[in-house]
Amino acid sequence: MKTPFAQRFAHITSSSLSYILKAPMQPDVISFAGGLPATELFPLEDLRAASERVLGARGQVALQYGSTIGYQPLRELLVGEMARRGVRCSTEQIILTSGSQQALDLLARSFLDPGDTVITESPTYLTAIRVFQSCEARFVLAPTDGEGIIPEALPELIERFRPKILYTIPNFQNPSGITLAEPRRKAIAQLAAQYGVLIVEDDPYGQLRYAGNDIPPVKAYDEANQIAYVSTFSKTVAPGLRVGWVVATPETVEKLVVMKQVADTMSSTLDQRMVYEYLRTGENAAHVERIRTAYRERYRVMDAALREYMPEGFSWTKPEGGMFLWVTGPEGLDAAELLRVALEHRVLFVPGQDFFPDGSGGRHFRLSFSNTVPERIREGIRILAALCHAQSAALASGSSR
Amino acid sequence: MKTPFAQRFAHITSSSLSYILKAPMQPDVISFAGGLPATELFPLEDLRAASERVLGARGQVALQYGSTIGYQPLRELLVGEMARRGVRCSTEQIILTSGSQQALDLLARSFLDPGDTVITESPTYLTAIRVFQSCEARFVLAPTDGEGIIPEALPELIERFRPKILYTIPNFQNPSGITLAEPRRKAIAQLAAQYGVLIVEDDPYGQLRYAGNDIPPVKAYDEANQIAYVSTFSKTVAPGLRVGWVVATPETVEKLVVMKQVADTMSSTLDQRMVYEYLRTGENAAHVERIRTAYRERYRVMDAALREYMPEGFSWTKPEGGMFLWVTGPEGLDAAELLRVALEHRVLFVPGQDFFPDGSGGRHFRLSFSNTVPERIREGIRILAALCHAQSAALASGSSR
Repeated sequence: MKTPFAQRFAHITSSSLSYILKAPMQPDVISFAGGLPATELFPLEDLRAASERVLGARGQVALQYGSTIGYQPLRELLVGEMARRGVRCSTEQIILTSGSQQALDLLARSFLDPGDTVITESPTYLTAIRVFQSCEARFVLAPTDGEGIIPEALPELIERFRPKILYTIPNFQNPSGITLAEPRRKAIAQLAAQYGVLIVEDDPYGQLRYAGNDIPPVKAYDEANQIAYVSTFSKTVAPGLRVGWVVATPETVEKLVVMKQVADTMSSTLDQRMVYEYLRTGENAAHVERIRTAYRERYRVMDAALREYMPEGFSWTKPEGGMFLWVTGPEGLDAAELLRVALEHRVLFVPGQDFFPDGSGGRHFRLSFSNTVPERIREGIRILAALCHAQSAALASGSSR
Repeated sequence: MKTPFAQRFAHITSSSLSYILKAPMQPDVISFAGGLPATELFPLEDLRAASERVLGARGQVALQYGSTIGYQPLRELLVGEMARRGVRCSTEQIILTSGSQQALDLLARSFLDPGDTVITESPTYLTAIRVFQSCEARFVLAPTDGEGIIPEALPELIERFRPKILYTIPNFQNPSGITLAEPRRKAIAQLAAQYGVLIVEDDPYGQLRYAGNDIPPVKAYDEANQIAYVSTFSKTVAPGLRVGWVVATPETVEKLVVMKQVADTMSSTLDQRMVYEYLRTGENAAHVERIRTAYRERYRVMDAALREYMPEGFSWTKPEGGMFLWVTGPEGLDAAELLRVALEHRVLFVPGQDFFPDGSGGRHFRLSFSNTVPERIREGIRILAALCHAQSAALASGSSR
């Protein structure tokens, strides 16, 4: 008899991520795999200064247990940040979490029972899939196009599968890079209200727009309080400091507090206070602008290299922000096999299979451009494109295994 | 119909902890409630220096994502620390967690299915109860005496209830302060081997011994690899830095890594590196000695004040370390009611009900002495004892409600 753990995590332990994690992280490896912010751009000086302020006079309190719901001044600051993003909320609607990963996990554990249904985009964030799998959820994949989830397709799915949660990453989606169009945001918020479905809106990348205009979150249209908005400082400050947050109803926040007591008592008080001390200087706006500029260039270099080197039969998305683009190869491509070969050539990416709950999606793969300097992006794409040529040729000649 | 959340957390949301958390933390409140280390004794200067080293040259890497299993140099250092505690292990047997609370949660989520049985001490750590409740476990309470769990009682319980996990806090137990005797440690390890039960050994307080001699962990007798040992730097360094760990088999560690990816991706890289930089200076030994000395004094002051002020019919444990002692009142005492009155007199503690899965235990309460200076310990016990007098008198006259 399989253990329950093995049952729940059959997909996970066999995932290609184990490959990637075990691949030596040596300087000669070009990684388009992890969704890592640019290491060299972290605001180190400003964060060191913030740390000195936190651990200065009366610094002992920053080392003690703090409240489970999170550091009050940072929650208050986030009320202003949410207003800037187009969402009106009060402090009691905000809980701080150990990164947005924990936010997703707490929401899933609080609202899902085994067998419950979750509607997701297809493809979607691989560790969100694992969160919902760990709650033994069933997946229903929403039809999407270049503007995200197609709202017109939802009523039938909702009536048929009665989902508890609709999970969406509206901005520069992971892994596709696609952005949910504004009219669709309104429509989806209205559907959530009409059917009483909880929307989990995951927005780690929204501040990383390098083209086009900002669009308000789905939460901005949440007249029925059916949306839990999740975000993080991992991409705009630093992921090593584990600070994310949820904006939801006070009742939902209370549930999340109870679950967070179970999960880790509280998040690092030092991290929370450092982020607060850093943000209140106002330096972060300029920092985010620097990242946006760098990611814009890296995206353009990757897109240009793909256009220069990739063979016929491959296409990719044109994200207006974020850290990823999504490549679609010819019918029959096996991205996991491509990865196996690419690892031998010291190039990493994440194969499409990891972003589909059912393990389909082998003709796709995700490329991250955020943590690789332009010269190495060109070099990595050149190598990868040559391998795609070989795979394409093998497919065309019917000799593909 | 109740929501699943409400079903699982009926005990929790009605717990007296909500009282305590809502009680204003004003300077005139004397709190014996939380298990907080002494704030004024945190090694602030040393940790500030550690922070400066971590965020100095090449500090960017401390702000980036790190591995889920935890910072390698700290895991290596823990091999030595575990040897010092009497446990031989290798680095691959160690995973770092966001405090030991997360360690308990990850272990429970990895090994428990709804309806599975957990054997615990009685009383036991309140948030461990909640962890197991969140996995919908059934509880079997092991008979205990002044030397901890009585091993002779276990075979019958194990054969009857087939538990997945036996959960024990062997040193200065929370909430009782009791220490599991050495011969019993051996016996319990042997029983775990014989019956294939996973022992979760939770040891947050073992370094805080202020009387008697150290005893090796149960894990030191774990010849069959049936024990997951859990500890934390929350009590010996600072809880605001969320760094705990598990020592288990490499296979169990792999499971915990998968679960931790779901739970929070990784713990704060800054916290992990600061703890490492601080520990490798060797300053921590002197710091722990300072805490032990302070807690010894505080314990003695509390014990003396209890002897001076408490009425007939109350008794309490005599812990040789840790942060708590456990008071038992006369039959019929309702510690939750006592707390309600004590709150009006600005004194806090945790009533016994919170430490029993079935909500029994009302004649007991837990007093923490670690984060209160001696003068205020005396003052708080004087107030509390007067209220106990009143309750006792009411009970004796039969007018108790």
